[in-house]
Amino acid sequence: MPRYAMKIEYNGAPFAGWQRQDGLPTVQGAIENALAKLEPRAHTIAAAGRTDSGVHALAQVAHCDMERDWVPERLMGALNFHLKPQPVAILDLRPVADDWHARFSAHERRYVFRLLSRRAPATHDAGLVWQVGHELDLGLMQAGAAHLIGRHDFTTFRASQCQADSPIKTLDALRIEEMPTNGGREYRFYLRARSFLHNQVRSFVGTLERVGAGAMPPENVKTALEARDRAACGPVCPPQGLYLAGVGYADDPFAGGDPR
Amino acid sequence: MPRYAMKIEYNGAPFAGWQRQDGLPTVQGAIENALAKLEPRAHTIAAAGRTDSGVHALAQVAHCDMERDWVPERLMGALNFHLKPQPVAILDLRPVADDWHARFSAHERRYVFRLLSRRAPATHDAGLVWQVGHELDLGLMQAGAAHLIGRHDFTTFRASQCQADSPIKTLDALRIEEMPTNGGREYRFYLRARSFLHNQVRSFVGTLERVGAGAMPPENVKTALEARDRAACGPVCPPQGLYLAGVGYADDPFAGGDPR
Repeated sequence: MPRYAMKIEYNGAPFAGWQRQDGLPTVQGAIENALAKLEPRAHTIAAAGRTDSGVHALAQVAHCDMERDWVPERLMGALNFHLKPQPVAILDLRPVADDWHARFSAHERRYVFRLLSRRAPATHDAGLVWQVGHELDLGLMQAGAAHLIGRHDFTTFRASQCQADSPIKTLDALRIEEMPTNGGREYRFYLRARSFLHNQVRSFVGTLERVGAGAMPPENVKTALEARDRAACGPVCPPQGLYLAGVGYADDPFAGGDPR
Repeated sequence: MPRYAMKIEYNGAPFAGWQRQDGLPTVQGAIENALAKLEPRAHTIAAAGRTDSGVHALAQVAHCDMERDWVPERLMGALNFHLKPQPVAILDLRPVADDWHARFSAHERRYVFRLLSRRAPATHDAGLVWQVGHELDLGLMQAGAAHLIGRHDFTTFRASQCQADSPIKTLDALRIEEMPTNGGREYRFYLRARSFLHNQVRSFVGTLERVGAGAMPPENVKTALEARDRAACGPVCPPQGLYLAGVGYADDPFAGGDPR
């Protein structure tokens, strides 16, 4: 069966996460239903990252197996047609080898988190950022973040329901940028690792926001990490600022850039 | 009566435009209703630009007259509280002189238009951009735009229902920038003038999009302008990419920058 890799953008707001669940709207379910319009049967697709309810994607990657050979542009166009009006779009679609796997072939995940500091409620960005009404200090958040980079036991920043074999992971990058936005300041967190624990990014950002607000000194991030205790974590922040921004593969099916 | 100037951001999608209309949701109506929660009576506010149905604002400016003196930050907070969950936010609010007028004191309006060129449907930006599926040529659009800058009779680019006294206006700037966006290209049009005719920006962008698509040579923009004939205009583009981005005043109540 020919296999195709898909690069997928979605707004997570109306979905109960990526993973198919009976009776609930999910991104996986939406794409599998669209595939069933093209080849009527049960479809099961696999994704690089199983995003939680309300989490967005700029470039999720998944693969599907088809019965017949499709011209990639036609398959992409047909899927986008059947996905409408749901906020899910296939940005790119390429044929891959039978043993290429969106999840198991991936060696890197990249996430972006958008945190808005502004008193007036968000309008255009409502549901696309996590908003706080107070000021934040970029330098303090960066100092706190520095303690998290590298190979650590991240038990403190791991949800109790996390199914990973080990809490030991290597965080390759956690960069924070500040930018002016209409009437406020936006902070973007850029994270990169081979893989992440469940709720790891939201646990990081929830803790670093407390540091930026002046409620916790940056050194306490190190103390919390070394405690290896979920209770030492700051609050887990809400999902609507989180985006799966990219997936890295040694054999990248999308190399050569995006189509228009 | 103390007068206050407001800087207002809104998502135009759910509104039948700025101007109050009986039985229809409008931005003016939403703000006047919020004011009536604070000082129960009929309120009438005036704005710098009466945006059409579906048009957004990043920084609309309006003024209101109150019976009692309000601490500006408290008045802004109370209005934002009562505006929720409508996508309208007061970003800044300042006391102004009795003879300061949001519309008549304004000497400049700035608009931004967001045009997305991408085959896959917009998800996060749905309703916030005008999307086309084909490629556009920035250089052609810039060459076409150059013909529009300066003082001209803009009858070609004026809606039949326009109420301005004269079709002669001076367009101070029309700059177009191209930027990569997730899976496509975005074109931002930045326009600046003392005032605009009804549908002028959407008539410009609709015409320049045809130029960018290769359907009309840039020189035809000059021919169309000189025809002084509505029939010579390209298609008027849809409203969802248009933003009132700022208003200029000699005596700017918001000078000194945005609050957080």
